[in-house]
Amino acid sequence: MATPESPFDVEDVRARVSLTLSEYVELQLPTLREISSDVVVLHELLTAFTTGGKRLRAVLAWWGWRAAGGADDQAMIRAATSLELLQACALIHDDVMDGSDTRRGAPSIHRSLEALHEDSQWRGSAENFGLAGAILLGDLCLSWSDQLLFESGLPAVALIRTKPIFDVTRTELMAGQYLDVVEQARADIDSDRALLVARYKSAKYTVERPLHIGASLAGAPPNLIATLSAYGLPLGEAFQLRDDVLGVFGDPQTTGKPAGDDLREGKQTYLIASAFQRASAAQWEQLNAGLGDPDLTADDVDRLRDIIIETGAFAETEKRIETGTNEALDALGSSNLANGAGEVLSALAIAATKRST
Amino acid sequence: MATPESPFDVEDVRARVSLTLSEYVELQLPTLREISSDVVVLHELLTAFTTGGKRLRAVLAWWGWRAAGGADDQAMIRAATSLELLQACALIHDDVMDGSDTRRGAPSIHRSLEALHEDSQWRGSAENFGLAGAILLGDLCLSWSDQLLFESGLPAVALIRTKPIFDVTRTELMAGQYLDVVEQARADIDSDRALLVARYKSAKYTVERPLHIGASLAGAPPNLIATLSAYGLPLGEAFQLRDDVLGVFGDPQTTGKPAGDDLREGKQTYLIASAFQRASAAQWEQLNAGLGDPDLTADDVDRLRDIIIETGAFAETEKRIETGTNEALDALGSSNLANGAGEVLSALAIAATKRST
Repeated sequence: MATPESPFDVEDVRARVSLTLSEYVELQLPTLREISSDVVVLHELLTAFTTGGKRLRAVLAWWGWRAAGGADDQAMIRAATSLELLQACALIHDDVMDGSDTRRGAPSIHRSLEALHEDSQWRGSAENFGLAGAILLGDLCLSWSDQLLFESGLPAVALIRTKPIFDVTRTELMAGQYLDVVEQARADIDSDRALLVARYKSAKYTVERPLHIGASLAGAPPNLIATLSAYGLPLGEAFQLRDDVLGVFGDPQTTGKPAGDDLREGKQTYLIASAFQRASAAQWEQLNAGLGDPDLTADDVDRLRDIIIETGAFAETEKRIETGTNEALDALGSSNLANGAGEVLSALAIAATKRST
Repeated sequence: MATPESPFDVEDVRARVSLTLSEYVELQLPTLREISSDVVVLHELLTAFTTGGKRLRAVLAWWGWRAAGGADDQAMIRAATSLELLQACALIHDDVMDGSDTRRGAPSIHRSLEALHEDSQWRGSAENFGLAGAILLGDLCLSWSDQLLFESGLPAVALIRTKPIFDVTRTELMAGQYLDVVEQARADIDSDRALLVARYKSAKYTVERPLHIGASLAGAPPNLIATLSAYGLPLGEAFQLRDDVLGVFGDPQTTGKPAGDDLREGKQTYLIASAFQRASAAQWEQLNAGLGDPDLTADDVDRLRDIIIETGAFAETEKRIETGTNEALDALGSSNLANGAGEVLSALAIAATKRST
């Protein structure tokens, strides 16, 4: 979609954020090298780890800034990029918590460090070494995140004004992650609680708060902050539900994950919770028996998918995605955002929630 | 030791920091409760976790501030307390990395959460749940640390000026921790590398940087910053070496740990590295066979202690502690710190490095 500011649309912002992120990670190298050459490996791992990703949070922070009238400014690109370091911490720690072997097709950080321990023929448990190193690299990313925000070059008054929003973003992220861990551990499954997790882990952390951070840095008035919430919260929920649908019905070629991955993992998503709540006794038994079984065959996955469709959970979730997306678009429709931000945010909402199955 | 400012000496500062810390942790409760009642348990665990501790980093930040002429100011107590939240993160994550069951006689955070999982009869691995919750609570503490610094009430210009020192403190802490993990994993042991770990984990993180943070908040000139380094670095190393000596020779009634705990753990400290480097072939074999054996008897511990004394490693380490402490005292002697800070810092150096065996 063409906008008057085509050089600064989503793809270009993504590219600028990626470049800024790799430059900033590079900038930490002398500090680490001065401490010890043994620490440099953390830098190498992080450089590889941060090459991928959609930069969604940074892009939204940028467009929150633009929506509030902010100029094209490399300092704001740097401030937006701070969210990608927060996200790197979340992913590195998440992989430790889930015991994930891979991230975007490459070994996860803790597995890479495990391999370093083995290759070096060091003492003790390689697994513990990987765990410890990944916790510490995540902690470094979390520290470097607000460090980058404050080194962005934006005026001190803007940073001081925005710090409380940045702070609540981190608290909501970590509390939301904890809520998710509790939810996955519970014996029962509940669609309202699944929506609460989606609200904190996705709607607020991924969409609403990044928009707020950008807007606040540009000095947005309260009514613009409210508009961005009215757009961001329903859209963020829709993002998460789309992700949940793709986790069950997505094409492996598009998602990069095995077909029906969420079913094998037994992930407690809204889609699954809704299926359980709508299931007949026989359907409930089949869902319950299959969910979380890592050895499900392709036929088993198909059968579970059929049940999720037959219960009406699939249609209901799709309806909810559509409603959320429309709410988000309506919030933009009645506003008048600066710099063509309304058009970009509309296009982004449609692209990120559209059916791909 | 009486100083002109007796109401604000070390013990009083410690008490004010402890009160401020518990009030600030309490202040996070509404935010957590609004997210979900399921998250409140993290607050309860942190409240219990943060009741103990010597508040050394906060006390030193306070006296760095006082040394630079800072007035008695509750805002500075809050800023100093931010370091105790950083320390809470370090301890919570450290206990996860070490798999420690206890911290100051109570269950560690990950073990408490493991027990919650078991008591709630949740699904999956209780151990993984404890690990995940403790990683996230540590992340919350790390976030709340700079949050408290910026909510301290100190002027924005002082905060912005000091943020880079706070940032480097965090990087040195985490890189130092990683270095320690690598050191414990290496097959060989080396006294220079042990001193490097002590420099980053203790001398800089625990002593020099807290003093710098306080002094910078008060607007200290470069020569005062240099004096605080000349005091803090040798003293911080001496602190760590005293800790290492206590870990081998300390009285369980004073240290709160079993006698010879570091020997059973096989900790690679300067004292132990020095013993290996000075050992005869026969002594080396005995050290190597005993170190890291969790089943050492009291007699075994006594025998290893004798070897450490016989090699001269004990005397050499004591000498190094004395030299470091004297260097620190000399640095103060030639300076003229405000608010009687020189006397307080001298007393603190002597108290924290004195022989207790």
